[in-house]
Amino acid sequence: MAKSKFITLEGGEGSGKSTQVGLLADKLAAAGLEVVRTREPGGSDGAELIRGLLVSGPTGRWDPVTEALLHYAARREHLTRTVWPALDRGAWVVSDRFADSTEAYQGAGLGVDKAVLTALYQQVVGAFKPDLTLILDIPVEVGLDRANARMAGDGDEGGTAEDRYERMDLDFHDKLRLGFLDIAAREPERCAIVNADASIDAVHNAIWMTVASRFGLDVR
Amino acid sequence: MAKSKFITLEGGEGSGKSTQVGLLADKLAAAGLEVVRTREPGGSDGAELIRGLLVSGPTGRWDPVTEALLHYAARREHLTRTVWPALDRGAWVVSDRFADSTEAYQGAGLGVDKAVLTALYQQVVGAFKPDLTLILDIPVEVGLDRANARMAGDGDEGGTAEDRYERMDLDFHDKLRLGFLDIAAREPERCAIVNADASIDAVHNAIWMTVASRFGLDVR
Repeated sequence: MAKSKFITLEGGEGSGKSTQVGLLADKLAAAGLEVVRTREPGGSDGAELIRGLLVSGPTGRWDPVTEALLHYAARREHLTRTVWPALDRGAWVVSDRFADSTEAYQGAGLGVDKAVLTALYQQVVGAFKPDLTLILDIPVEVGLDRANARMAGDGDEGGTAEDRYERMDLDFHDKLRLGFLDIAAREPERCAIVNADASIDAVHNAIWMTVASRFGLDVR
Repeated sequence: MAKSKFITLEGGEGSGKSTQVGLLADKLAAAGLEVVRTREPGGSDGAELIRGLLVSGPTGRWDPVTEALLHYAARREHLTRTVWPALDRGAWVVSDRFADSTEAYQGAGLGVDKAVLTALYQQVVGAFKPDLTLILDIPVEVGLDRANARMAGDGDEGGTAEDRYERMDLDFHDKLRLGFLDIAAREPERCAIVNADASIDAVHNAIWMTVASRFGLDVR
């Protein structure tokens, strides 16, 4: 049995991460592995409370450094309550977002100094990192169209929509995409870019081929 | 007119900080200064939301590092929205708690590494620091008795009491007191210890003598 692994999916709005996290988790479970499917910000009771402060409300409600701190606060809860205990007992963990999102959204997107984010990672996460990060890449306009269609489908009328980041301007989303691609370029051993501008099945197959070959799983 | 100053009051539970912040702010205003009275965690809309996560609920609800991150998130909001703008326009700012509380509560009290707290201060606050910090010192049992009497007087029955830290054990409060005294010993130029085991008037007078002499104000 393969040793437990921490796999993260990253990408901008409408890149299909959540759907693909579910499909990947199901596939790993079907391969006989214990799988924990989780997400950031969130993934534990306290972290979900912090999520509420981050994903809704006015786009400018937080100073960008505050936002990075709140994401790392949620991340610390997620790691100590959910991710690390699961890995310790041998489970595989598949997370919809992790620290790369903070570097892309708050760093590349909102301009928080790299030094701040590096210090936070070191102090809060330490030497731990994902075994594999799949970066779902999609043209900004295509992703936002998808995300907007999803929000319309939710029929949200109470102002509690989790769309705070989607509502940020196009320039933000352009920087975000480049931020993710830059991370992938700097860490090719950990990261794999997946073309997310394709059908759900096609993206899932591309993800599964990458995961199976990386960890020596049966590809079927 | 004296240039704007940032004065912080620190101390454990029941040390009388809030009362003394009010009396000091009134005295400075009576001396003709524009004064902003504020508090941590809190002091701005977003920071007050984060406060709600910190000061109520089960004592063990957060990992200690998470707690430090949440305090610094609230602090960043407080600084960028309230403290720095006030100082920039020439106001004096008197705050009920600041970063020393994180060092005492999460560092000395809950065991968060000094390196984590130092990195957070550097990245979030930078070179900025209080012009004067008054540390209200009181024996732990006396302070907790006062705090408990106050909570009983609030008649809180809905579980929303801001008593999460008060409910921590005696060992925590002992470490907290020593943590504050250690800060005062390391930074004697910035910090002054005030004996808070005295009447409200006596403590106020001691505080005012310190503030007036430090900043060259008329002592009357």
